[in-house]
Amino acid sequence: MIGLQGLPELEDGDDLGPLLADACARVGGLEPGDIVVVAQKAVSKVEGRVVQLADVVPSARAVELAGEDGDPRQVEVILRESAEVVRSRPPLVISQTRHGFVCASAGVDASNAKGPGTVILLPLDPDASAAALRRRLAELTGVTPGVIVSDSFGRAWRQGTTDVALGVAGIAALRDLRGSRDAVGYELRSTMIAVADEIAGAAELVMGKSRAVPAAIVRGVDAAGDGRAADLVMPRERDLFR
Amino acid sequence: MIGLQGLPELEDGDDLGPLLADACARVGGLEPGDIVVVAQKAVSKVEGRVVQLADVVPSARAVELAGEDGDPRQVEVILRESAEVVRSRPPLVISQTRHGFVCASAGVDASNAKGPGTVILLPLDPDASAAALRRRLAELTGVTPGVIVSDSFGRAWRQGTTDVALGVAGIAALRDLRGSRDAVGYELRSTMIAVADEIAGAAELVMGKSRAVPAAIVRGVDAAGDGRAADLVMPRERDLFR
Repeated sequence: MIGLQGLPELEDGDDLGPLLADACARVGGLEPGDIVVVAQKAVSKVEGRVVQLADVVPSARAVELAGEDGDPRQVEVILRESAEVVRSRPPLVISQTRHGFVCASAGVDASNAKGPGTVILLPLDPDASAAALRRRLAELTGVTPGVIVSDSFGRAWRQGTTDVALGVAGIAALRDLRGSRDAVGYELRSTMIAVADEIAGAAELVMGKSRAVPAAIVRGVDAAGDGRAADLVMPRERDLFR
Repeated sequence: MIGLQGLPELEDGDDLGPLLADACARVGGLEPGDIVVVAQKAVSKVEGRVVQLADVVPSARAVELAGEDGDPRQVEVILRESAEVVRSRPPLVISQTRHGFVCASAGVDASNAKGPGTVILLPLDPDASAAALRRRLAELTGVTPGVIVSDSFGRAWRQGTTDVALGVAGIAALRDLRGSRDAVGYELRSTMIAVADEIAGAAELVMGKSRAVPAAIVRGVDAAGDGRAADLVMPRERDLFR
């Protein structure tokens, strides 16, 4: 894992491709098979997924879910980003986003934002964001990397966040071991490994929220494939926790 | 991440320390700051945490939870390993283990086992297992690594497993960013990163269930600390999903 540093503060409309290509060049350039992991916030900023809370009028439901401690305008943005609220305990809202991800605050985040009273939303289509960045990096560097757009998600039952894949391009999201045999010859019956999430989590170890490293190269992991982030969403009929 | 290969099939009472020290030596030896990640199954085998299903008499509840497709004897072992059943849909049981982990089958697993009709249980005290291995590796190699005992857990709402930390020694389980400031000067309010889980997941990328690589070295991650696996368990009062 190689952290990519030196990106400027990003603005709506910035072209991430050359900025990341330059950052890659500063650490020796991309190599075939590399995976570039980019923090969701960097992608959301250049895609203009930023909302000024001063412009938001909260609904009655947002006021209720915000409770004493939350900002009803921020909860209103969360509700607009949500297909369904899964759990709430004011001011905490766990919901399913329109992409299908179940996460806190529908991925809406104020920290590291573009100023007080500003929140950043998830990209509208993180797979498309990843695919566009992959094409752009290929044009600019001559190497076509895998790309992951990552974000920090909490987990049920476990403390702390781990970074997971919101969008992927050119890599498998899952490695399916069903039907393969383990080291002693038994069939592995139901093992699918969320490789894209593990790669996103590995990249976080060199990215770090407070160190101004919004991207990383992960090298030496064979994960080529044609996955989509939706592969990582548990189908409703198999979901025991909604 | 460096996979550690060439370990023999493990038996109850085997001393994992020299086997891992030798495997480390074959890839150039341990370096200060290294973290050794060992698959739970390797630890459980040498600790004798293996049960022959032929010796198990299932309770009525185990028969019920096993349904048509499950093995009631295996479900009986799962119930004995569980402090509480969180969800069930026969033959699937999600429970909280006596360690506090919420996971499928209380971590009881038949695949890769020591023969048909054999299941492997989680270690009784994975932190103690990690600490003992850390001491042994220090004696044998002169380097005191961090140690993680890892296992593959499914997640609520997301498909596929990622490897997480069941036991840790000499490293922090969580990196607490509360009160630190992000790149643009805003305080990060509620960010704890589950670094031990991210390191375990990263190691899985070179371990792999079907490739006979039960351990890995993770190098270059600064995670020194005095964590416990219990740090990674969501406190009951903050748990919205039980």
